[in-house]
Order: sequence, then structure tokens, then C-alpha cells
Amino acid sequence: MTAQKTSIPKGTRDFGTTEMVRRNYIFDTIRSVFQRYGYKPIETPAMENLSTLLGKYGEEEDKLIYKIRSNKNFRERLSDKQVELLDSIYPHWLPDKSENALRYDLTVPFARYVVMHQNEITFPFKRYQIQPVWRADRPQKGRYREFYQCDVDVIGSDSLLNEVELIQITDEVFAELGMRFYTEIKLNNRKILSGVAEIIGMPDKVEDIAIALDKVEKLGMGKIIVELKEKNIINERNSGMIDLYIDSFKSKISNNDKIIFLKNILKDSDIGKKGIKELEYILNYLDQLKINVTLDYSLARGLNYYTGTIFEVKSSEAGLTSSIAGGGRYDDLTGIFGLPNVSGVGISFGADRIYDAMQEIKLFPENSGITTQLFFVNFGANEEKYCLPLIAEARKKGINTELYPDSAKMKKQLDYANSNNIPYVAIVGSNEMNSGMIALKNMHTGEQINMNFQDLVSYIISRK
Amino acid sequence: MTAQKTSIPKGTRDFGTTEMVRRNYIFDTIRSVFQRYGYKPIETPAMENLSTLLGKYGEEEDKLIYKIRSNKNFRERLSDKQVELLDSIYPHWLPDKSENALRYDLTVPFARYVVMHQNEITFPFKRYQIQPVWRADRPQKGRYREFYQCDVDVIGSDSLLNEVELIQITDEVFAELGMRFYTEIKLNNRKILSGVAEIIGMPDKVEDIAIALDKVEKLGMGKIIVELKEKNIINERNSGMIDLYIDSFKSKISNNDKIIFLKNILKDSDIGKKGIKELEYILNYLDQLKINVTLDYSLARGLNYYTGTIFEVKSSEAGLTSSIAGGGRYDDLTGIFGLPNVSGVGISFGADRIYDAMQEIKLFPENSGITTQLFFVNFGANEEKYCLPLIAEARKKGINTELYPDSAKMKKQLDYANSNNIPYVAIVGSNEMNSGMIALKNMHTGEQINMNFQDLVSYIISRK
Repeated sequence: MTAQKTSIPKGTRDFGTTEMVRRNYIFDTIRSVFQRYGYKPIETPAMENLSTLLGKYGEEEDKLIYKIRSNKNFRERLSDKQVELLDSIYPHWLPDKSENALRYDLTVPFARYVVMHQNEITFPFKRYQIQPVWRADRPQKGRYREFYQCDVDVIGSDSLLNEVELIQITDEVFAELGMRFYTEIKLNNRKILSGVAEIIGMPDKVEDIAIALDKVEKLGMGKIIVELKEKNIINERNSGMIDLYIDSFKSKISNNDKIIFLKNILKDSDIGKKGIKELEYILNYLDQLKINVTLDYSLARGLNYYTGTIFEVKSSEAGLTSSIAGGGRYDDLTGIFGLPNVSGVGISFGADRIYDAMQEIKLFPENSGITTQLFFVNFGANEEKYCLPLIAEARKKGINTELYPDSAKMKKQLDYANSNNIPYVAIVGSNEMNSGMIALKNMHTGEQINMNFQDLVSYIISRK
Repeated sequence: MTAQKTSIPKGTRDFGTTEMVRRNYIFDTIRSVFQRYGYKPIETPAMENLSTLLGKYGEEEDKLIYKIRSNKNFRERLSDKQVELLDSIYPHWLPDKSENALRYDLTVPFARYVVMHQNEITFPFKRYQIQPVWRADRPQKGRYREFYQCDVDVIGSDSLLNEVELIQITDEVFAELGMRFYTEIKLNNRKILSGVAEIIGMPDKVEDIAIALDKVEKLGMGKIIVELKEKNIINERNSGMIDLYIDSFKSKISNNDKIIFLKNILKDSDIGKKGIKELEYILNYLDQLKINVTLDYSLARGLNYYTGTIFEVKSSEAGLTSSIAGGGRYDDLTGIFGLPNVSGVGISFGADRIYDAMQEIKLFPENSGITTQLFFVNFGANEEKYCLPLIAEARKKGINTELYPDSAKMKKQLDYANSNNIPYVAIVGSNEMNSGMIALKNMHTGEQINMNFQDLVSYIISRK
């Protein structure tokens, strides 16, 4: 038989040990911060009914949803002639009609979950969810077809204290990951955008404005202005106001001065003023908690379900242009599934982009790939039997310990320890068995010391 | 818009907080034992190329593989008339030709991984992998379409010490989960079955015998004997020997006596004697390590890639008839992907079945659903601002703490704490703000004590 070529689908990845240990460090950090604030874990299945997902993300996004079929049922209802026809036009047909799809994000499954379990849930419901999602997107640097989202949401409360809490969480996550100096938390409110749409005489164009603003970083402001003119959102009557607004994006002024500016231009918009009031409330609490955020009223966040506060975290270093976390308030996420008027707010952390950023800034500790601390060289059956109880004892003390499975050449065994990043090697040959001592080799320095087993255990535990 | 009905695909599950905490307890326990023995984590993508999976599990199993399509490319190559035809015969067609599939188990992706990364790997390669797998199987009690496997394998070493180690791991996992008294580790060797096949004159029928033996528990020995007679595996010449072998299944004798029995009936089979020697080696080490296993030479394990030791764990309690862990040695798993003659041995733990068993035996600790320890009642803006720094401090000390986001009625807030299983509630109203004390309510006993903040922190930490 010829050997099959090995590969994996484009845009997907294998994770080796070092990557796994580092990824788990990110997940564990995020998870422990979420729990510290009282958020509770849930998980939903990888597969949802296709109908649960379709029509929730936009037309273009729907095309990126992976559809799943199993191999049953449909075939039985076709005539032989139909099967023949299918084979000739559509060789990829599958004899099933069930329509499932892979999770595209964690938000829609969460909305479905809340509605389906509404009688078991006590609101406000504070949940977090850390799971992979799948998108049939064109793979490129930093964009994968399988990637993890870490979502934290509170649903069923319209208190702005939730926004404050989510920003505390965001600040704490990046502080604990050592990324605080490399990240910026940006804050805005969709009502500001609605206010702007109102005062330029385009109250029903908020979506278009948000979508356009979202593309500024990618395309540049020039192209966006052309687009808005073509859509007749910028016209002769309002272009002065828009110039004023856009010009202000460039100025580096304090959050307070930005509030003053907004109060000035939005003085005739009720919704605009409401947005400013919400921002002031949040900024006031964050001041008290000494948490830095940047009020950025050019921030839009494309998704059309946001209705209030929006936030986003960018990493200025490491050449990252895309956000590594983002979210906002939505007033009616569960309405489509039959539970209207439930307000919620949440933020999603992109673990893969955080990983890539931490990698580039070299933030992972040097020993973050180590899983085994102690390695026993295998000299043969007698030594094996002598060592096995010692190894069991070391493991009981919490030391991850390995014994080489064969009495191979010493060099081969040390090479194994070396390439597995094992820091300590215990050598127990006939001399050591006679003397009751163990030769412990430090693989980093090459130094070798004789000690008894109890001292060896204490030594390694103290150096973990 | 009419609300959409909420449901999830048959055979899949949502996991709420209590289930999550318990499941994570199982995963964490298994993971820490694996690491204690020096096994290293890897992960592979949920999607593999369909060709990687097909033809590895058997014809029936191939039908249970979920196939995935994205929404691209194929449509463009069809004429309008072809599209019309497709729509009429096969309304479920998808405009893509790419063929991916969801992981069916962790073993084949592992083999693919080893071959693909062979130049980065140092052999023997000790890896573990804890991930979900998907099977389009008929859902029933204890059988899901999405479920987790926890696999631990060592590949590239034919030392029987690996078998001993995997049994140590198995014993330790169930001991730590509190299941040692409810489980039995069964041990056999495929070479014993080959020996039996040889001495009954059917050396090429080992597979059929293994498949038949696998069904004994489900169908009863009577039906299996009929099946083997129909297949002409049992005939007049060998039925005496087979009766002897099958009769011995019923006797409850020691492992030693079983070895004596096997030595007797397999005295003329070289492969049988080799199997006995391997079993004796393993049993000898397990004796020394005081680990109990049951030699069960009726154990077969259907999968045809096993070539040596096989093991299985059954839970005698909780009405479970299916295995909760199992595995064995395979001599050539990676051959099909172009890396021949690499021997490996591994075991897979079925986390979902372990969960169900622990649930039925009531092995989960009562507080295993608790994630938040301390809840602050919200009395309004002033109290909020007074409490926020205290809450931040409690979290810094590692206490998972919540503040209710609104100054709702006391009863509503306590109900919330109650239904979220939060054990302690801190009450800070104007009296407490004046006195600098906090009223701490034990939600289990109803008892309420006044104390200062530092004492409260120590109190809760000591009771975690």
C-alpha cells in the first residue's frame, strides 16, 4: 500500500507541548479572572442546528459557516436514476438531509442557551465560555479557520456597573498576562454614533456609519469619506459638522476634554446626550478604580446588535492591527429566539491573537514548556525494580517523573531528557544502589551531585 | 418576526455550571496524573482531511464520520441548468467540493500527527490528548454524538514497562476520582487470542474471534457460539478445546491459576506462549507495585490494530455495562501514513461515561458546583463606591466575589445568591459603613455575624 500523504485542512493547526502549555497558561489566567468576578462556566456543543446560526451574522458571514452532514437517510428516498444524475452533476452529494453547522462564534449559541434554559437560569446571568469556533475564512497571518474565543457576558441587567466590571476584568487579564503596557482599552458608546447620525441629519444611517468607521484603519479615512459621499451620507449640508468630528479623531486629548467636545457637538441630540451620560458614569468609576481607558469615539465595532457601550483592546506593539478583545452592550440578543427585551453586555478575548502577541513580545517565561521535572535513567531490570518505588514516591510528592522504558545507551537517554526539556536527571546504577545514594544531574548546568532520595525530593520541590 | 424554536442537534448537550465544574474536576484529575508520569499534551484540529479518516475504522464506522463543507467554489463551475436540476433532485446540495471531516477518535489524528511531525519528535513519544470527538451514531443512554476522549499513548518503544506504567496511571486516575472500589482493570493479550486461534486450527480467524468475543456481554455466549459455528470457526474437530476454553471463563480463579491454565492449553503455540510471557512480566511488576488487575482472557477489544497487551476498565456498579476506559498495544499504527514498524501502546478514558458513573454512585462532593464564595448585597450608589475597593481586595486574596449590579430588593438579591450556591453574603448598609463592620451571612445556616473586613477575608479563606 502506498503511504498516504499527511496534511491538515488549511487554516487549522496542530499544537505541540510548548504551545499547549503556553495556551493553557492564557486560558487558565483568563478563566481564573472570570471566576474571581463571579462568572460561571458553561459549554455548548460544537454543532448547532444550521437554522440557529443562519441569518444572525450577515449575508457574507453566513457563507463562512461550516455545514455538517452525516451519511444517512437521504439516499433511501432517491430513485436510481436520480442517484445517477446526482453523481454526474454533483459528485459530492451526501445521502443525508440533516442540517447541522459548526459554531461560528459563542454569542449566538449563548443566546440560544439562555432562551432554551431560561427556566433554570437566575438573572442576571453571569457566564463565561471558552471554546473553539470555526470559520471558512481565507486563512492568513493571525486568522485561522479554527480558533478559540473566551467570552464573558452578563445578561438580564442593564446596570452600567456591569460595564465597569467587564473593563476591570479586561484590565486584570492583561495585567496578569504581563501585557498591560502593550495594550490599550478603547471605550465608546453606540449612542454617540446615533447622536452623530442624528445631528448630521442621517438618523437611520447609524449602521452604515459604523460599518464605514470600522474600516478606517484598514482603508484610510480618505476612502471612507468617498464611500460615505457615494452613499449620500455626507452631503453639502452636513460636511462641515463631519469635518469637525473627523478632525477631532486626530487630536490627542484627555478623556475629559473629549467629553466636553462631545457635549458640544451633540447638545441637540437626546440619544447622543444619553450616550455621554453613560460614558461619564463608567469613566467616573474607572477613575476611582485607577483603571486607564481611552475614550475613542471613532470606535464603531461592526456587529449590528450593539446598542450601548462598546469596547475594544488593541495591542500597539508586535505589529498587530487587529483587536485582541472586544465587546459591548446589546439590548435584544435573545429576541429572535423568543425572549425579547433582555439586555446584556459582554466581551470576547481572542486567545490565538493574544498568544501571537505574547509570542512576539517574548512574554512567555523561559520554562513555560516544561511538564516533566525529573527523569530516571534506565540501567536494566534490577535498577528498574529498585527505582520504581522511588519514582512512585516522587510522583506522590507532586514531582512529575519519568523513567526511560528501555535500558538504552546513556547518551540516547540523556538526549531524550534534553530534547524534552527535563531539568533534572537521576542516575541510579549498581554503585548508587549499594550506597543508597542517587546521582542527580542538573541538565542546565551539567553539574552532578550525590544525595539521598529524601534530599533529592526536597531539592527538586524547592526549585519548581 | 416569529420567534425561532430553540433546540440543539440530537445526541449533543449543553453543560451548565455544576456539570462544567464536575467535568473539569475529572479532566483536571486525569490531566495531572498523565503529567505526573511525564506525558505531554498535544492538540489536533477538530477537522481533518476526510481522506485521513476514511478506511481506518471499518466500513460501518466510516458511515458515522461527520463530513464538513464550506460554502464556496463549486457553485461557480455549474451551469444554470445544472443548478436547477440539483435544486430539484437534491435541495441540500452545497456549492463546495472541499472534503473535511470531524475527528472520529484521537488515535488516527495522533498517528497522522506523529508522521507529520516525526522530525520534531523525540521517540519514545509520550503524549496525552483530551479533546471531543464526533460520531453520527444513534444517540442513547451513555452514547452521545459529541463526547470527550482522554487518550494517553507512548509510541516508539516496545518495552513492556510502558504497559505497566499505563496500568499504574489507570489505577491512579480511578483512585483519585474515588472510583477504585467501583472499577475493575481487565488485562489480556491479543497473542493469547492468536494462540487460541492457532490451536483450534483457525490461525487466520483471530479477527472474527475477537469481534465475536466482544459481543458476548451484549448477546450472551449462546448466540456467539452459533455465530462461530455458522462461520465454521467452531467445528467438530475443535469444539472440545473451545468448550474447555469457554468453560474456564466462568470460573473465578486467581491470575496465577489462569496463567497455569493458559500455559496448559497453549503449550503448542509459539505466539500463545509469547503472549503468556508478556502477561507474566506485567503481572509481576504490578504485584510489586500492589496494583490489582484481573487477567481476563475473554477480553478481545474489537479494534483490529491491537497486536499485544489489551486492557479495559469496567465499572461494576451503577448498572454500567460498557467500558469506561480501554486500550492496548499496536505495532503499526503509523504505517498507513508512511512511518512503518513503530510500536505503541495507549489507553483512552471516556470522560462522559466516567461522569455518568460518578453521578450515579454519588461521588461528586456536595460543593462541587460552587464557583463564587462571597456575594455583596447592593444598597445603592454610595454603598457601591464604599464596597468596590473591599471587593477588589477580596479578589486579590483569591476569593471569588460578586457584587449585585443593581440595588434591587434584598430578597431578590439573596435569592440570586442562593440559587447560585454562593455560601457567604456580605451586607454593608449605612450602619455598617459608619461602624466599619460588615454583616456576614452564612447562607447554609442562616447565621449572621458582624466582623471587620480583614477578619472576614481570613474567615472565608479558612473555610474554602
